[in-house]
Amino acid sequence: MTPRGFLFSTAEAAIKKVGRKDLALIYSLVEAQMAGMFTTNRVKAAPVKLSMRRIKSGKGRAIIVNSGNANACTGRKGMADVVEMTRLVADGLRIPTSLVYAGSTGVIGAPMPMDKIKSKIPGLIAELGKVSASDVAAAIMTTDTFPKIVKKKVKIGNKTGSITGICKGAGMICPDMATMLCFIMTDIAVSGRALGKALREAVKRSFNRITVDGDMSTNDTVLLMANGVLGNTVIDQKSQDYPFFKNALSYVAYKLSRLIAKDGEGATRLIEIEVKGARNEADAERAAFSVANSNLVKTAVYGNDANWGRIMAALGYSGAFMKEEKTDIYFGKVKVVGNGLATGKDVEAGKVLRGREIGIVVDLHVGRSSAKVLTCDMTEGYIRINAAYRT
Amino acid sequence: MTPRGFLFSTAEAAIKKVGRKDLALIYSLVEAQMAGMFTTNRVKAAPVKLSMRRIKSGKGRAIIVNSGNANACTGRKGMADVVEMTRLVADGLRIPTSLVYAGSTGVIGAPMPMDKIKSKIPGLIAELGKVSASDVAAAIMTTDTFPKIVKKKVKIGNKTGSITGICKGAGMICPDMATMLCFIMTDIAVSGRALGKALREAVKRSFNRITVDGDMSTNDTVLLMANGVLGNTVIDQKSQDYPFFKNALSYVAYKLSRLIAKDGEGATRLIEIEVKGARNEADAERAAFSVANSNLVKTAVYGNDANWGRIMAALGYSGAFMKEEKTDIYFGKVKVVGNGLATGKDVEAGKVLRGREIGIVVDLHVGRSSAKVLTCDMTEGYIRINAAYRT
Repeated sequence: MTPRGFLFSTAEAAIKKVGRKDLALIYSLVEAQMAGMFTTNRVKAAPVKLSMRRIKSGKGRAIIVNSGNANACTGRKGMADVVEMTRLVADGLRIPTSLVYAGSTGVIGAPMPMDKIKSKIPGLIAELGKVSASDVAAAIMTTDTFPKIVKKKVKIGNKTGSITGICKGAGMICPDMATMLCFIMTDIAVSGRALGKALREAVKRSFNRITVDGDMSTNDTVLLMANGVLGNTVIDQKSQDYPFFKNALSYVAYKLSRLIAKDGEGATRLIEIEVKGARNEADAERAAFSVANSNLVKTAVYGNDANWGRIMAALGYSGAFMKEEKTDIYFGKVKVVGNGLATGKDVEAGKVLRGREIGIVVDLHVGRSSAKVLTCDMTEGYIRINAAYRT
Repeated sequence: MTPRGFLFSTAEAAIKKVGRKDLALIYSLVEAQMAGMFTTNRVKAAPVKLSMRRIKSGKGRAIIVNSGNANACTGRKGMADVVEMTRLVADGLRIPTSLVYAGSTGVIGAPMPMDKIKSKIPGLIAELGKVSASDVAAAIMTTDTFPKIVKKKVKIGNKTGSITGICKGAGMICPDMATMLCFIMTDIAVSGRALGKALREAVKRSFNRITVDGDMSTNDTVLLMANGVLGNTVIDQKSQDYPFFKNALSYVAYKLSRLIAKDGEGATRLIEIEVKGARNEADAERAAFSVANSNLVKTAVYGNDANWGRIMAALGYSGAFMKEEKTDIYFGKVKVVGNGLATGKDVEAGKVLRGREIGIVVDLHVGRSSAKVLTCDMTEGYIRINAAYRT
C-alpha cells in the first residue's frame, strides 16, 4: 500500500542514453511537511544546494528527479538549470516554485541537457498517477541492478498509515550518505520538529552506516514528505504515537540501506560488520567502518578466505581504542580469534563465507558500546563497472 | 657500489612455500649507529615490538628478515620466537643479542615455523658475503613483482660514501608506512641525533606519502644503519655535510617509494597526485591522500577515463579547505577543470592516461602549500591477488 495522496510519473528524456526512463516526478496532492538530509561533501551538486535552501521552510509539494547527469560541478549554469526545472514543474502544477525540490544522479561536470528535460516536463505533469513508486525507483537507477523500494504500515490510533521509501545506491557509497537519492513518502501527519528528529535518528543508523567504496558523493539527498492525508492528530515529539512512527521510519531506512549494500557495484555478498565491547559508540563506529572500508577485507570475503589478520590490521589503524590481546573475532558463529590469537577455525569460517549474507562480529572487550556497518565484497565487477563507464 | 662493511646472506627456509629464498641476514662488520621508524598501527607484529625496544640504544650490528610469515597476532609465542631468532644470530656472530634486529612480512596470525628457521641460521651466518643487497631485496618480496633497490653516492669532504636502500611493498600500503620493510645501509659516519632527524625527514615525504590500498600494515619497519666505515668525521646536525647526507638519504627513500607505488598489487600505472595552493601542508596532504585513496579515481585511471568529477568529489570529502569554484585540475599538462568548471578537454586528458606514469595536479587556489602523494591504478589484478591468496 502506497501512502495516500501521492502521485508519480516518469519519462524518458534520454539524458545519458536512450531506451530507459530517466526523469521522474513525485507529487503530493496537498502541501506536505518536509525534512531532508544532504551530503556533507564540500562539493555539492546544484540540486542539493537548491533543496537545502528550500527545506528551511519545512514545506513541499513536489520533487523532480533525474538520472544520467548529476548536475554537479556545473557552476552558475547548473544552478540556473535546476531552478528552471523546478519552476517549470511549479508552473505546470500551479504551485509556488519554493515547494518544488530536485535530486540528480549521474555524471559529474557535464551540463544538463535542458532542451531534452524541458520538453518532457509537461508530459510528466499530465501523466501523474499513471505509474507507481516502484517505477520512480527504476527511473533513478544508475549502476543499480534492481529498483529499491520498502513499504511499511503503521497503526496510528485507530487508523493505518503507511510509509514508502525508494532509493538508488550502487557506487560512491560512504558514510554520511551514499551517492544516494532517497525519497520517503508518508500519509501520516507529523510536526516539522518531530519529522526532522525522526529522520536524523533513522539516517544515523542506516544510510550513515553503509559503505561500498569509501567515496562520498556530491549528490546525496534524503527527502521525507509527510502529507497528513491519513487525517490523524498531528504527531509531535511527545505524542504516544511518535515512537511507532519513528520506528517504522527507521525500519524503512534500514531496509533500504541493506538493499544498497547488497547491490554495491560488482557485489556478490552483503557483509554486516558489528563491533561490540568498544569504549564508546564513536569508537565502535570508527572500528566497524575501518573494517568495512578495507579493500583487503572485502577482497578476502570475495575469495572465501576468512582472513582475520586483515581485520585485526584494520582495527589497529582505525583510531579506535583496542588491545590486540583482548580482541575476539567471529565469522557468523565461528570464532576465529580469541584474545587476539588464532583459534584454528579458519576452514570452518571459510564455509560461512560461501553464504550470500555474511556477519562478521568483533568484540573488543574494552567497553560496552557497539555499532553495525553494512558493506559488500569487492570483486572484478567493481573494477569493470568503474573502469569501463563514466558513471 | 654497496656501502663498505656490510655483508649479506640469504636462505630458503620454506616458510610459506618452497622454491624461493625467504630468509636473509644483513650484517655490519663494525657496530653501526641505527635509526628506525615503525608502523603506527595499534596492532604491531612481534619483530616490530622487539626492534622498537632495541632501537632505543641507537646501536646495531645485524638484521634478520623473513618473508612468508608476518609473526603478527601471535601473542607471547610470537614474541618468544623473534627473541630466539635474534639470539641465535647473535650467538653465531658472537655479538650481543641487543644489537640484532628483526623484520617479518607475510601471513598474519600463523605461528612462525621455528624449526625451519632455526635450522637455516647457521648457514646464513656461514654464507655472509656471498650474496648482494639485491638478493636480500629479492628474499623479502611477497606479492612484489620485482626486487626494489636504490643506490646513491655522496661526496663527504674528499671521500665518497654511499647509501643503499632495499625494500618490499606491494599491498597493505598506506600512509604512515606501507606493509613495507625497508633497510638502508650507509658507510658514512653520522651521529645518532643527525641520523634520526635525517630519517624522519626522508620518510615524511616518501614512505609516508604513498598509498596502494589505504590499508596500514602491522609490520611496517624502516631501519637505517650507518657504520662509519668510510672514515669521515662524524656528521652531526650542524655539519656542513649534513644537508648532502640528508638529501641523498631522501633521494633513496623517495626512489624506493616510487618503486613501491609502481609495483602496487595489480598496478599498471604509477600515479603522482600533487595538490598545490592549499591553506597549509596538512590540508594539501589530506586532499592528495583523499584523491589517491579513492577507488573510483584509481579505477578511472585504469580505464583511461579522465574522470575529474571523481577527483572533485574526493577533494570535497577530504576535510581539506577548498572551494569548488576556485579549483583547477590537470592531467599531465592538460587542464580539465578551470575555476571548478569543465574545460572540455577530457579526450586529450584521456590520452595522457595511456602513459605508464601519470601526473595529476590539483590547484586549490586558497593558499600556498603543496604535497605530493604516490599511488597506482586499481585493476582486476588487485582483486585477483587479494581474493585468491592469503597474503
